Amino acid sequence: MLFRQLFEPETSTYTYLLGCERTRRACLIDPVASEVPAYIDLLASLNLKLVYTMETHVHADHITGAGRLREALGSKSVVHRDAGAMCADLLVTHGVPLQIGDLDFEVRHTPGHTAGCVSYVMSDRVFTGDALLIGGSGRSDFQQGNAGQLYDSITGQLFTLAPDTLVYPGHDYQGNTVSTIKQEMAKNPRIGQGRSREEFIAIMAELKLAYPRFIDQALPANQSCGMTEAGA
Amino acid sequence: MLFRQLFEPETSTYTYLLGCERTRRACLIDPVASEVPAYIDLLASLNLKLVYTMETHVHADHITGAGRLREALGSKSVVHRDAGAMCADLLVTHGVPLQIGDLDFEVRHTPGHTAGCVSYVMSDRVFTGDALLIGGSGRSDFQQGNAGQLYDSITGQLFTLAPDTLVYPGHDYQGNTVSTIKQEMAKNPRIGQGRSREEFIAIMAELKLAYPRFIDQALPANQSCGMTEAGA
Ligand SMILES: [Fe+2]
Ligand SMILES: [Fe+2]
Repeated sequence: MLFRQLFEPETSTYTYLLGCERTRRACLIDPVASEVPAYIDLLASLNLKLVYTMETHVHADHITGAGRLREALGSKSVVHRDAGAMCADLLVTHGVPLQIGDLDFEVRHTPGHTAGCVSYVMSDRVFTGDALLIGGSGRSDFQQGNAGQLYDSITGQLFTLAPDTLVYPGHDYQGNTVSTIKQEMAKNPRIGQGRSREEFIAIMAELKLAYPRFIDQALPANQSCGMTEAGA
Repeated sequence: MLFRQLFEPETSTYTYLLGCERTRRACLIDPVASEVPAYIDLLASLNLKLVYTMETHVHADHITGAGRLREALGSKSVVHRDAGAMCADLLVTHGVPLQIGDLDFEVRHTPGHTAGCVSYVMSDRVFTGDALLIGGSGRSDFQQGNAGQLYDSITGQLFTLAPDTLVYPGHDYQGNTVSTIKQEMAKNPRIGQGRSREEFIAIMAELKLAYPRFIDQALPANQSCGMTEAGA
């Protein structure tokens, strides 16, 4: 498998490229609109054909590159049915398997940061989007966020994966790149260390986060796969 | 590839089993509820794991086996986004590629019989559902049917496939099992032989078909993947 973890510094977003060496088919998880030319170059240099762009959710902090990549490369956009992005080509739900060459993904619905959040599970790793972050979690105070639901998603759908499963989040603001389920269960100050649902809800309620910088451009743009004026 | 064309005589429905010999993964196109026990036996005897059930559309004449197969085998139900079957697990749109082991499918939106009709295209064959039938076509007088749209779907999306592409329809009432694109373009009395759009619309308007026998049970049942009283 070809694997690249790509970082967009303005919004601290991680994008993941996964490619099958046998079939040369590839996907991008959470591509960022401003980086599309770089993705196109990278795919060409690796001799990969982009089949799917896979969103973990409709983002409030950056604009997706899904629409531009679809235009440039013919890739298809994957998103959860409840994400409200009817621009997407393939609407997935919990438990659906997706195959890209020899790469196998299982969709897990992990709402709570947004209603349409999913994690993409592979045999040895999981892409958690903004549900589970390294030493943290996504916020739950907008986009139908719900702290109790987020607790249920993380503990029920992610902490039940094999302990050595690699955790690749949608963002990191401190330079962390990867963790494991075992490590997050042991160390995550918000939701690891045996935190109860009530404790997690109380912690989330006290965060007092600023209104997201880009949300008023990003949300409408991402509902059309990034193809509005803000995304173009 | 393992391939079986299965026939349900009460509604003259064809169901197709396709299996990948390398990965043992399989799909069923248009499974019928009453045949589910036979499918389960057949899959077991061939040592195949059912990954997807793929509907060409929401049927008016038989009840889908998708829901029962999901319960029994954990398979996921695939249907077009516009078919109105929100019970489905994977909602597809035109141009989306789907992979099952080494089997590659491309979704083509072929509305006109119903709004959410698709054909599933492989390298050497196409599953046309009730859009193109052997020597005929699906009716266009209910379920948002539209004869002009059906003409555009068949001529634009199916007659543009390679001439030797095998045509596997959703029904046949005369014992035909398979045709080719070339043969339908040459011989189909409704839409082949260079028929114009206007001719096709006139032919369809004059069919005077009986109200479908099972539609009042089948439609609501199929909108919930066959899992209503009528389907159970
Ligand atoms: Fe987010
Ligand atoms: Fe039909």
